[in-house]
Amino acid sequence: MSQQTKYLLDESQMPKFWYNIQADLPQPAPPVLHPGTHQPVGPDDLAPLFPMDLILQEVSTEREIEIPEPVRDIYRLWRPAPMYRAHQLEKALGTPAKIFYKYEGVSPAGSHKPNTAVPQAFYNAKAGVKRLTTETGAGQWGTSLAFAGSLFDLEVLIFQVRVSYDQKPYRRAVMETYGARCLASPSTETVFGRSVLEQRPDHPGSLGIAISEAVELAAQRDDTKYALGSVLNHVLMHQTIIGQESMLQMEMADLWPDVVVGCTGGGSNFSGIAFPFIGHGLRGGPKPRIVAVEPAACPSLTRGRYAYDFGDTGHMTPLTKMHTLGSTFTPPSFHAGGLRYHGMAPLVSHLKELNLIEATAYTQGECFAAGVLFARHEGIVPAPEANHAVKGAIEEALRCKREGRSETILFNLCGHGHFDMTAYQKYFAGELVDEAYDEAELAMALAGLPSVA
Amino acid sequence: MSQQTKYLLDESQMPKFWYNIQADLPQPAPPVLHPGTHQPVGPDDLAPLFPMDLILQEVSTEREIEIPEPVRDIYRLWRPAPMYRAHQLEKALGTPAKIFYKYEGVSPAGSHKPNTAVPQAFYNAKAGVKRLTTETGAGQWGTSLAFAGSLFDLEVLIFQVRVSYDQKPYRRAVMETYGARCLASPSTETVFGRSVLEQRPDHPGSLGIAISEAVELAAQRDDTKYALGSVLNHVLMHQTIIGQESMLQMEMADLWPDVVVGCTGGGSNFSGIAFPFIGHGLRGGPKPRIVAVEPAACPSLTRGRYAYDFGDTGHMTPLTKMHTLGSTFTPPSFHAGGLRYHGMAPLVSHLKELNLIEATAYTQGECFAAGVLFARHEGIVPAPEANHAVKGAIEEALRCKREGRSETILFNLCGHGHFDMTAYQKYFAGELVDEAYDEAELAMALAGLPSVA
Repeated sequence: MSQQTKYLLDESQMPKFWYNIQADLPQPAPPVLHPGTHQPVGPDDLAPLFPMDLILQEVSTEREIEIPEPVRDIYRLWRPAPMYRAHQLEKALGTPAKIFYKYEGVSPAGSHKPNTAVPQAFYNAKAGVKRLTTETGAGQWGTSLAFAGSLFDLEVLIFQVRVSYDQKPYRRAVMETYGARCLASPSTETVFGRSVLEQRPDHPGSLGIAISEAVELAAQRDDTKYALGSVLNHVLMHQTIIGQESMLQMEMADLWPDVVVGCTGGGSNFSGIAFPFIGHGLRGGPKPRIVAVEPAACPSLTRGRYAYDFGDTGHMTPLTKMHTLGSTFTPPSFHAGGLRYHGMAPLVSHLKELNLIEATAYTQGECFAAGVLFARHEGIVPAPEANHAVKGAIEEALRCKREGRSETILFNLCGHGHFDMTAYQKYFAGELVDEAYDEAELAMALAGLPSVA
Repeated sequence: MSQQTKYLLDESQMPKFWYNIQADLPQPAPPVLHPGTHQPVGPDDLAPLFPMDLILQEVSTEREIEIPEPVRDIYRLWRPAPMYRAHQLEKALGTPAKIFYKYEGVSPAGSHKPNTAVPQAFYNAKAGVKRLTTETGAGQWGTSLAFAGSLFDLEVLIFQVRVSYDQKPYRRAVMETYGARCLASPSTETVFGRSVLEQRPDHPGSLGIAISEAVELAAQRDDTKYALGSVLNHVLMHQTIIGQESMLQMEMADLWPDVVVGCTGGGSNFSGIAFPFIGHGLRGGPKPRIVAVEPAACPSLTRGRYAYDFGDTGHMTPLTKMHTLGSTFTPPSFHAGGLRYHGMAPLVSHLKELNLIEATAYTQGECFAAGVLFARHEGIVPAPEANHAVKGAIEEALRCKREGRSETILFNLCGHGHFDMTAYQKYFAGELVDEAYDEAELAMALAGLPSVA
């Protein structure tokens, strides 16, 4: 065991502002469209779902948005989050590269998700909202909103994808411990849920369906709003505290990354670490390569189409331009549930179109092998989602080895795998199948995209 | 949500020495006896099981023992650990008391156990040992030794109590992710395991049996030693970094505890937070009340006898004087597996006899209710073991409310409950039974204690 280096910020160094990349974009992202009129939506169109403070953040082009003191107060429970140099992993790989990782698993929910759950709960409570609805797949997001809701005395109602609800009862138990109510989706509590169950009583559910249910309920009641754990601009912005802290920590290490790596599902943890570095580059600073790593079984950035699409299956959301596999596409089952979404955040998609980021995809088997190697040398068991970032970083480090380059690699270890050990079990038992998506289904889903002029 | 206060030490403030309470005891603890001769054991008697560095720590009366740099290096992965003031819990209880908690769940294994697993792995690796054997019940200790072993390239073989092995496959998956090998105990790989299985092929196992198996294997091979997660003097001493940090953090808060609370099974996390405060008091400092909280279903301190007993079921260990329920006593099944041991650490037992600590016991239902209240107000879901400390602290805070006293209460939140959500599930489903131990079995186990002159 050689030395292990931790870069820890003082609490006083915790950023006081979120970074809004919309201030620095060379051209603005395409507007969000009303699904009926295909005209850009205004703040009022979103008011049934979100409190005005969050809507204004969604459309803001100010570079810095102040983090309210009560939010910073709760952030302090686990922030500033540590950054480590992975000396042991470097040695195991025999690479001249320097590998750093930012660790977001230190939050009470075990991932980066509370970075946005807390401000979303705060702004809703401030607006007099009594209840939040949301969806969750694997449960990371649901856990985080349940945690944040309990601290602001908000009721939280979570539509959990039925297959996860049944297979991951522990996640549900955490949400219930925080006082939230979980429903298996599709449920009988919404019109849309009932319509799905009528067609197929044993429907396993999907994130797209759960979103439709949560949105439907929130739209019906004045005291109830909806909260989303990724994709939207304000959600991505709340995560930028990750990258802002990382920039300070890279300064502590007297280095700057040549490559920044994050895993992408909806895009929130990736944006969190990447946006501050991208913005710094756009304002004249060094420009690291930015690599998004996605699952080969749900490859929206690498195989999807950049087009207007719905965010949900019930087509209740506005249309956003994004890399999408089609809102009717059902990704095959794999263990990184947090990456199992048909679309990609519009801002991340836009950056891809501007060639400001790269994207790559790996199978879950490759990613678990990377995660186990990481755990045995660095001591932390990553979440299956985070394994994609680990895999991406290892591939960069091996490239550096081949090229004899001592580059600096930074990746986001967005959560621990404590709630995902069934997946590791299956990996060790040789039962992990790298299921490919159905090419015909993808073609059909893409053919069914809404036609927008 | 009002403010939440975190007391975070700088890395440079991390203690460089463990505190050895044996230096400050008003009278030494009774000696450890050889089970055959009933004579005090010497270092050589322990050499087949432990490396000499640890044996010397076991019997040392030096006040401070230096933490080797490679151990401090790994400690830095998660240490110094934070201390928090539980403002929200205080408000919910309406108490004038000030409640502080030290949080040890920030380690990669999720509990305080790596504080001793890391130095044990270090000293064994330094002595040229190739393989460690150990036992684990719920899995906290096994996970921690697997973690530490992977960092020092040691093979780790873990005998996991069969009922846990079957019921908690996720814990096993974590241990295997760190590269350890797990065996259900009783196993067919030891003479003692086979003898147990011969009598009862479906034996559910116990910690006492698993210890016997691990000790048997370690004693057979020169390159193999045994590691224990609690009870022994050196193990308790490694945990004192908890209390030493807490003392610095209480100084930061400009307060000193009137009461220090910890949960007790074997005694290690309790000792970790309590010993430095007790020692400080013995050397002329303020003397807080020290409260050990144990499960009502396995009440060694409150209902056991202070007597010489074996540490294991197979009677392969030396005899130690401790509060014991008898080595043949099988505690009823409950969810705080880490507290399910027939004996108590000799040093903790000795302090109880000297009236330097108090002890109290609660049922698991009471403790889970306390844990849920804590989670909803402070945001962290405690391990079932830690719920006992939460319950103890809440009871002290309610006493302060009745008495109108603004005392300062410090407790050790020794781990998070992420691997224990089945227990919370059962709690919410109303399926948690407060099973009492069998009084007749206890009487029989006590009657069977070895007679030592």
